[in-house]
Amino acid sequence: MTFPKSVRLVEVGPRDGLQNEPNPIDTATKLELIDRLGAAGIAYIEAASFVSPKWVPQMADHREVMTGLTRRQGVTYAALSPNLKGLEAALECGVEEVAVFGAASEAFSQKNINCSVAESLERFIPVLERAQQAGVRVRGYVSCVLGCPYEGEIAPAKVAEVSKALYEMGCYEVSLGDTIGTGTPLAAKRMIEAVSRDIPMDKLAAHFHDTYGQALANLYAVLEEGISVVDSSVAGLGGCPYAKGASGNVASEDVVYLLNGLGIETGIDLEALADTGTWITQTIGRPNRSKVGVALAAK
Amino acid sequence: MTFPKSVRLVEVGPRDGLQNEPNPIDTATKLELIDRLGAAGIAYIEAASFVSPKWVPQMADHREVMTGLTRRQGVTYAALSPNLKGLEAALECGVEEVAVFGAASEAFSQKNINCSVAESLERFIPVLERAQQAGVRVRGYVSCVLGCPYEGEIAPAKVAEVSKALYEMGCYEVSLGDTIGTGTPLAAKRMIEAVSRDIPMDKLAAHFHDTYGQALANLYAVLEEGISVVDSSVAGLGGCPYAKGASGNVASEDVVYLLNGLGIETGIDLEALADTGTWITQTIGRPNRSKVGVALAAK
Repeated sequence: MTFPKSVRLVEVGPRDGLQNEPNPIDTATKLELIDRLGAAGIAYIEAASFVSPKWVPQMADHREVMTGLTRRQGVTYAALSPNLKGLEAALECGVEEVAVFGAASEAFSQKNINCSVAESLERFIPVLERAQQAGVRVRGYVSCVLGCPYEGEIAPAKVAEVSKALYEMGCYEVSLGDTIGTGTPLAAKRMIEAVSRDIPMDKLAAHFHDTYGQALANLYAVLEEGISVVDSSVAGLGGCPYAKGASGNVASEDVVYLLNGLGIETGIDLEALADTGTWITQTIGRPNRSKVGVALAAK
Repeated sequence: MTFPKSVRLVEVGPRDGLQNEPNPIDTATKLELIDRLGAAGIAYIEAASFVSPKWVPQMADHREVMTGLTRRQGVTYAALSPNLKGLEAALECGVEEVAVFGAASEAFSQKNINCSVAESLERFIPVLERAQQAGVRVRGYVSCVLGCPYEGEIAPAKVAEVSKALYEMGCYEVSLGDTIGTGTPLAAKRMIEAVSRDIPMDKLAAHFHDTYGQALANLYAVLEEGISVVDSSVAGLGGCPYAKGASGNVASEDVVYLLNGLGIETGIDLEALADTGTWITQTIGRPNRSKVGVALAAK
């Protein structure tokens, strides 16, 4: 066991969370959410996605969000930009960091973005070159690392291969996504062990979904391996696009509670974070999927 | 790490779960629930509580439940019987196994049963003697092992002391309850380590609540220690009496999913169990608190 001393939380609620809402949330609410998250001590917020509003209408206001937010010192405001067009738009908005996303499943890549995994990776090369030129760091996502809605189980070697490609292409960090939340702790450990043979542990992030209630157990298991960056979503915003009514992203509050209990520093004010979760779910009329949030609010 | 090869689930939904429902559930529904749980492969079901209907009206039909259930081979049907009067009534109903419950918190004991922990333990002596005479095994519960709603943190040494007293009194197994669900994995490990200095690991059970979303992470941590008996409640029935609207008992389905993923045998048919969770929550009009149950039903 080599628990990290501190963990950096990557808050994906404003992007990954709200992107999965059935209807777009208004820009003012997004901006208040982002501001409250920063005030609670979250140092990294994925705020928007520069993709076509035709495909993701929930993120159509990406320019308004990225230019409208009040930047706090020490907080990184990032955006997804899977292609050059999106990247150029993001750069115009003064984005400090962008992200691209690949998949560890061929079937998922085909169904989701209509190309093979290798083709998707090739498309990122000019994005990374342009970002580097502009002095903007790029984070890489890999989806389906512990299971695919179409293929089922995914070999750790495949996850390692895609992760290595993103890392060698210039992604400074690779976030490993259990997109459908089917993973369990030993599978999560084996996957992390495979990927960390090629990439230093401190360049990896765990992005786990709680669809089957396993996310915190899986996080505990990979913290034991030395993982020190965790993606999560305030109030578990977003749900699961592959199982209606089920949970998606693990709730940030529940992750912080776990980390506090393990004596791992995060720099986050749990009460302020939980208040933010209560506020945003009440504002958009969704259930609060953070158990910590619900328990603290009930007190 | 010394994971057990198999884990025995103690299903507490019909008792601990339904006891926390605001209104009593009809006996026929309870009997169908118990039967479905047995059919799904659960080998130990806590079916009723022989306490005064004045205090726990939800369990007023304990005689009807214990005499009305259809006994399946290989399944133990147990009941709570905290005093001699309750035990005699349980024995009349042909109960095979009973349970008594102590607390690791003085304040909780005083508020809950109006006596000190030591006094509560003394009251169990005649219950254990009578049970032994009747050839009926007694299980011991300890509540507040990872926190108390009145005292806050509880020392592992206090949990060990109460557990040892119950074990030496003749309880064949001691179930360690995180009554308010505030525990985290390292605290759970430390508590189990303290208790297992006096009592063999295979005589201990983990009874964890999911109020703060930590139950599965805590279970994973104590499975690493060698714990091989887990208490849980189908669909997470019961909620938390100390935080309205929050979760209580960890859901059996989520525990079985975790154990399946770890390659630990349970003898339980997860789909049949999840169907039972869907059925009972629909029947009594409560939310399904099993994430596995919700995800499987959404598929």
